[in-house]
Amino acid sequence: MSECYAVVGGAGFIGSHFVSELLGKGNSVLVVDNFCSGTQKHIAPFKDNPNFELVRANVEDTEELFSLFHGIDTVIHLASNPDIAKAALEPRIDFEQGTALTESVVEASRRAKVKTVLYASGSGVYGDAGETILVETSPINPISTYGASKLAGEAILGAYSFMFGLRSISFRFANVVGGMQTHGVGYDFIRKLQSDPDTLEILGDGSQSKSYVHVTDIVSGVLSAHSKSSSLSNVFNISTDDFLSVNEIAHLAIEISGLKPESVKFEYTGGDRGWKADVPIVRLSANKLKTLGWEARHTSQSAMKSALFDMHNELEGN
Amino acid sequence: MSECYAVVGGAGFIGSHFVSELLGKGNSVLVVDNFCSGTQKHIAPFKDNPNFELVRANVEDTEELFSLFHGIDTVIHLASNPDIAKAALEPRIDFEQGTALTESVVEASRRAKVKTVLYASGSGVYGDAGETILVETSPINPISTYGASKLAGEAILGAYSFMFGLRSISFRFANVVGGMQTHGVGYDFIRKLQSDPDTLEILGDGSQSKSYVHVTDIVSGVLSAHSKSSSLSNVFNISTDDFLSVNEIAHLAIEISGLKPESVKFEYTGGDRGWKADVPIVRLSANKLKTLGWEARHTSQSAMKSALFDMHNELEGN
Repeated sequence: MSECYAVVGGAGFIGSHFVSELLGKGNSVLVVDNFCSGTQKHIAPFKDNPNFELVRANVEDTEELFSLFHGIDTVIHLASNPDIAKAALEPRIDFEQGTALTESVVEASRRAKVKTVLYASGSGVYGDAGETILVETSPINPISTYGASKLAGEAILGAYSFMFGLRSISFRFANVVGGMQTHGVGYDFIRKLQSDPDTLEILGDGSQSKSYVHVTDIVSGVLSAHSKSSSLSNVFNISTDDFLSVNEIAHLAIEISGLKPESVKFEYTGGDRGWKADVPIVRLSANKLKTLGWEARHTSQSAMKSALFDMHNELEGN
Repeated sequence: MSECYAVVGGAGFIGSHFVSELLGKGNSVLVVDNFCSGTQKHIAPFKDNPNFELVRANVEDTEELFSLFHGIDTVIHLASNPDIAKAALEPRIDFEQGTALTESVVEASRRAKVKTVLYASGSGVYGDAGETILVETSPINPISTYGASKLAGEAILGAYSFMFGLRSISFRFANVVGGMQTHGVGYDFIRKLQSDPDTLEILGDGSQSKSYVHVTDIVSGVLSAHSKSSSLSNVFNISTDDFLSVNEIAHLAIEISGLKPESVKFEYTGGDRGWKADVPIVRLSANKLKTLGWEARHTSQSAMKSALFDMHNELEGN
């Protein structure tokens, strides 16, 4: 059955993949984006679809969101600070472009009588748990302002579910990769190798090891939880079962760029993590989501290779 | 050794007890308050103390806080929405007068190079766990926007500790009672019995059962954790070992008011909780704080009796 969706942050990398899937299934989709990190390019393919609507708006403007959400069944909230490391110098960015945006989306949803909010939280809520395999009930100890903002968003959403009956699902994403991506370690490597094919700077010591989920698996995971979760308020991890180290990603990026591994010199910035509040090892279990029938189609390895391939072509202008 | 303290929300009920204790020990104390719920009466006794300073300021004004915090060693952050039930109609109040205030205090503390922030969180972060005895590592599932705002504050503070070395301790208070109180179930009963000694309206069915800590035990608990906790970031429950039901509090209020129990008719609003997102049963363990040598001097029963006595006298104008 088709629904009316609003995708907040819909002109971004992840958002545009949701829009594509939802329109393809015959839903109507309103994209709300401030175009800080979203781009026209991401949504260009949908412009002629009669079920597609785009509004440039500031998500912190709750009154405007409220008027836009009139008649919307489901809000997918993806708007967030895209530059996680920047918080080391300007921590406030995660409050303003994280917690405060989410509060605005949730309050506007309540007032507009939206039925469901699907929220992009992140694995950052768990903090630095090392090799421990994290399930949704594992301890929550964010070490970054980014992780704190994601947790604050989950807490606000859960409270609104209980107090006002607004259905909500929070999704703790592993690292998301795919075509149209504009940041992240893979994007960074492809871009660096294009400007200098002889040397590759690697943040940290290259041993950081995490799960990388393909954006299409994120979309299928979120939408299958939306259709199958019966709780008023719920939380799901979304990740692959395997993981990749930063060194492995560097080698994949060199391969995809058509370079010879022996011709590229690695320069490590050192330390066990990419930046101060980076979590070097992340092990997420997606078993809870799997019990609803979802399965990732990509491994971390295949997701990253596919993403690097797409990004390489996009950057080459192919 | 004396320190420079700033008490944010220092003109409120709990704040004024901190100010009294800190000045008595020879510290200098700056009170920052917007006087929304704080009052001049609370801080009147300190006005002539040369180590006391009062500034009326809006806590959301981070620039002003930053300039005020220059030279401060320790910030005690107590500012919060004092009317928890109001959020059922205006949920945004807990974001604006909770999460956003805390972010402002924490960011100003970082910039002003404050050493330690002591933060009044609350048992609301745990949500509705029934008879389960809650320790600091118990699952965190706030069901109210108030609880969500307290959790968001803890998360922001913990992230700042990790990222910027700002020492922080969050305290999950049970219900705090004592003289100079201006809200809460005990205050409510004393006030109602003064205006109508024949009938007492009770929110819910009177079976709600929680721990009530005397404000002087809160002050000693916070300050003993401050002097003894060696972690960069820590969390402590503060509560008594016993608990009181709302019906028991009603009987104590009648006794303190000098009325005969059989002469007062109880009128229950019904349901198992006082308002939508009230948590009817709260069982907190303060064992972690006890291992640092702290002990509550009051039980819930003696704390409530003492508070009711003081509030009765204050309302009678004695």
